[in-house]
Amino acid sequence: LEHVNELSTRQQMIATAERLFRRHGYHATSWRVLVEESGTPWGSIHHHFPGGKEELGVAAIELGSEQAAAFVAGSFARTETASAAVRLWFEKVAEALERSGWELGCPIATVALETVSSSPTLAQASERAFARTQGALVAELTAGGVEPDRARELATLIFSTFEGALILARVNRSREPLLLAGAQFESLVADALR
Amino acid sequence: LEHVNELSTRQQMIATAERLFRRHGYHATSWRVLVEESGTPWGSIHHHFPGGKEELGVAAIELGSEQAAAFVAGSFARTETASAAVRLWFEKVAEALERSGWELGCPIATVALETVSSSPTLAQASERAFARTQGALVAELTAGGVEPDRARELATLIFSTFEGALILARVNRSREPLLLAGAQFESLVADALR
Repeated sequence: LEHVNELSTRQQMIATAERLFRRHGYHATSWRVLVEESGTPWGSIHHHFPGGKEELGVAAIELGSEQAAAFVAGSFARTETASAAVRLWFEKVAEALERSGWELGCPIATVALETVSSSPTLAQASERAFARTQGALVAELTAGGVEPDRARELATLIFSTFEGALILARVNRSREPLLLAGAQFESLVADALR
Repeated sequence: LEHVNELSTRQQMIATAERLFRRHGYHATSWRVLVEESGTPWGSIHHHFPGGKEELGVAAIELGSEQAAAFVAGSFARTETASAAVRLWFEKVAEALERSGWELGCPIATVALETVSSSPTLAQASERAFARTQGALVAELTAGGVEPDRARELATLIFSTFEGALILARVNRSREPLLLAGAQFESLVADALR
């Protein structure tokens, strides 16, 4: 039971970090706020994260990429074709972003941009996280019938557009950039299936 | 002459802020470092920026969007067709990013993501800056022969992909996401010109 509680304290801190980093970024979120919001006693934090905020940042990025990959997989599971799946993914993310009051964007991008030139540890975690989500997309596109080389190209393009459209949608408080991108890639993936 | 010097002190602070924000973001760049790096005497700063770091942030975002719009215009001026211009723009940005040691990404995105949920002033500046660059792209595409509604759609798509590809290129230390996007949009813009 003690082991379960330990796991859940750790998971709670990671989930809190992921939520706060998504909303305000890495540097604006202080260690003190992270501790307070996750309801963790001060004493146990260095036990869970001896590497401090940077170690917690890596764990939050990993959680973010798990969620993103699950979102991709969920969209492909719910649709008949790879082209429809890509469109559904963009639509569902646009809905979720609006529902969060335009606050919950990509769980990786903000931290990645803030730390890529200063923390090799966080930069590598971001690179792995992006590669994981892109890899999930390549696998789904290939399974859906897209030729492997084109699947890799399309995954890079789709994921680039996804990241940028999330920024524009959030700043403009509008689903439009995500919906346009979903419709365009539905058509490009359909071309790749012919 | 004194007026000229005043202008140049102000411009110098803005250029310094733009460079540091691009590299490390808004929150990691302290007011003290901004003052030191721009070589501005402490006493004159509040004269130039009575609104402090937030006011300097707005000016840095504006400078960034002027540079981005000039980059777009330059690519269209150097090419025969709108489709070739889009490809050249992505290629030149990829080159510049690599030349900067993968440090100088978008001058707006990092600050935008860091402040969109906490500073309405900076969020509005980001929205205006993105709208300006996108507007420059719509104008060039339309002048190049793309039908206005498709030009607006394409500009949103191209700009979304541009922002996301810049993130991936920087994190992966690779031109590939930008080059793939340039080639794909060259082809989509060519389709729109037919």
